[in-house]
Amino acid sequence: MTETPAYDDENIFAKILTGAMPCHKVYEDDKTFAFMDIMPRGTGHCLVIPKAPARNILDVEPADLGHVMASVQKISRAAMKAFNADGVTIQQFNEPAGGQVVFHLHVHVIPRFDGVKLGPPASTMEEPDVLKANAETIKAALDG
Amino acid sequence: MTETPAYDDENIFAKILTGAMPCHKVYEDDKTFAFMDIMPRGTGHCLVIPKAPARNILDVEPADLGHVMASVQKISRAAMKAFNADGVTIQQFNEPAGGQVVFHLHVHVIPRFDGVKLGPPASTMEEPDVLKANAETIKAALDG
Repeated sequence: MTETPAYDDENIFAKILTGAMPCHKVYEDDKTFAFMDIMPRGTGHCLVIPKAPARNILDVEPADLGHVMASVQKISRAAMKAFNADGVTIQQFNEPAGGQVVFHLHVHVIPRFDGVKLGPPASTMEEPDVLKANAETIKAALDG
Repeated sequence: MTETPAYDDENIFAKILTGAMPCHKVYEDDKTFAFMDIMPRGTGHCLVIPKAPARNILDVEPADLGHVMASVQKISRAAMKAFNADGVTIQQFNEPAGGQVVFHLHVHVIPRFDGVKLGPPASTMEEPDVLKANAETIKAALDG
């Protein structure tokens, strides 16, 4: 691939940022936004995105990437506490060959537990009540 | 887990930073260092680490994490060009349950190609000549 395709502002995460699409919000500051992955690979799997438009790591402004990672760290720490997790797996996919499905930069934060394998990507839609409860659990840990 | 274990300065990546262990270096600046993964999950798989001691994302200084990610972006862009890749997969593992094996914070940068699956983690030791050639290819793209 010679050039990163342009940002498409009709992507689902752009619509979550404008409020046109609903989500289970976990965290927000002036530069970043975080919400539950609706097809989690594990309990508490959430996504952190920049508010500024960026397709992925190839075109994001370095400062925005830094803001996103600062929020990834905050949420990783909170998720460890919230779920009494044993670890965290961070993933970030770029372009279809890299595993990317939605074309607004996003970082996966997946709490991990001893002896529990990572579930397959984008396989099963989680119940809204479960997502809501997990979002509340992370939010409480962020505030605590 | 209630608390992140302390940093162990006898880990392999700490020894790479001091020069006590060899590596195929790709990039270095005042805050970060990058080198080839000796058990790559794909062509051009490399690792970016902070020079400052940090066990993982749970204890790293946010500024150091930002420096690491700025280098991850540089190397991702260079690797796309170097190998004419179709995408990049970024992974970062925290604590054994999260997939971490070496306890100095590191970010995996894995160039991806249409139709080529990610290889299994830490499975096959790559030939030193191949690692050396791939490091040179990325370095040339970083300089170009």
